Amino acid sequence: MLTRIDHVGIACRDLDEKTEFYVATFGLMVVSREVNEQQGVREAMLRVGDGAEDGSAGAPGGGSYVQLLEPLGADTPVGKFIARRGEGVHHVGYGVTDIEEALASIGATGVRLLDSRPRHGSMGASIAFLHPADVGGVLTELVQAPINRT
Amino acid sequence: MLTRIDHVGIACRDLDEKTEFYVATFGLMVVSREVNEQQGVREAMLRVGDGAEDGSAGAPGGGSYVQLLEPLGADTPVGKFIARRGEGVHHVGYGVTDIEEALASIGATGVRLLDSRPRHGSMGASIAFLHPADVGGVLTELVQAPINRT
Repeated sequence: MLTRIDHVGIACRDLDEKTEFYVATFGLMVVSREVNEQQGVREAMLRVGDGAEDGSAGAPGGGSYVQLLEPLGADTPVGKFIARRGEGVHHVGYGVTDIEEALASIGATGVRLLDSRPRHGSMGASIAFLHPADVGGVLTELVQAPINRT
Repeated sequence: MLTRIDHVGIACRDLDEKTEFYVATFGLMVVSREVNEQQGVREAMLRVGDGAEDGSAGAPGGGSYVQLLEPLGADTPVGKFIARRGEGVHHVGYGVTDIEEALASIGATGVRLLDSRPRHGSMGASIAFLHPADVGGVLTELVQAPINRT
């Protein structure tokens, strides 16, 4: 069901500073910057790897990314996360080919869905979160990339 | 420098129970089980995705994994992590093609290396950890997979 590790979502206090760090230290490339008011974050997506040797993204449906997240305010989920635990890994996103099907299948196992229907995520993807308490303390996101995302 | 997200390392109290959960809920497949006395963990590696459509692993040097980690005792790094923060994401591992070169390059930027020389990791890989305080609160691992790992 899971096609790849789509991204690791990392909470940080200063998006510009942390983006620069990942570029300078690890040679990652920024492929998208967005503000998501609904989720209360400013974010940057940094591509990990160049994809498969044939020039495709390597895994079906998209590449892999470091997603850096800066809260828009203290009273946002990521703002509260940083206040409670400090900067660090906030969630893990896995690729799926059919998010509606995946949500139905996962929901049927008893895992609570924070989003019972997909919503808009980074770079045009459809996303949905699963309840971390039902996934061993890991805030888990499903990501269905748009067809042409690489 | 980073070729892929090699794995997400997840700390859990009960490896067998959590492994079964990931298999039943997400359809992941267990590809390796190991005890690593040096790191004080029992672990399972679960493959994420089937790789590229040409049958290769998709990304150069290996696939992507969920690594489930159960501490061998309370007085181990993962045991202390769970006592302090509960179950959840413990670290992120990124693939590199040449770990010695990567360590030299990253060390030169001022990031502290927890392992100045590579050591043995899961599934025959050479690994090294970077200091989380220098990587925005993320315990970061570099992974050079063995040539034939897929």
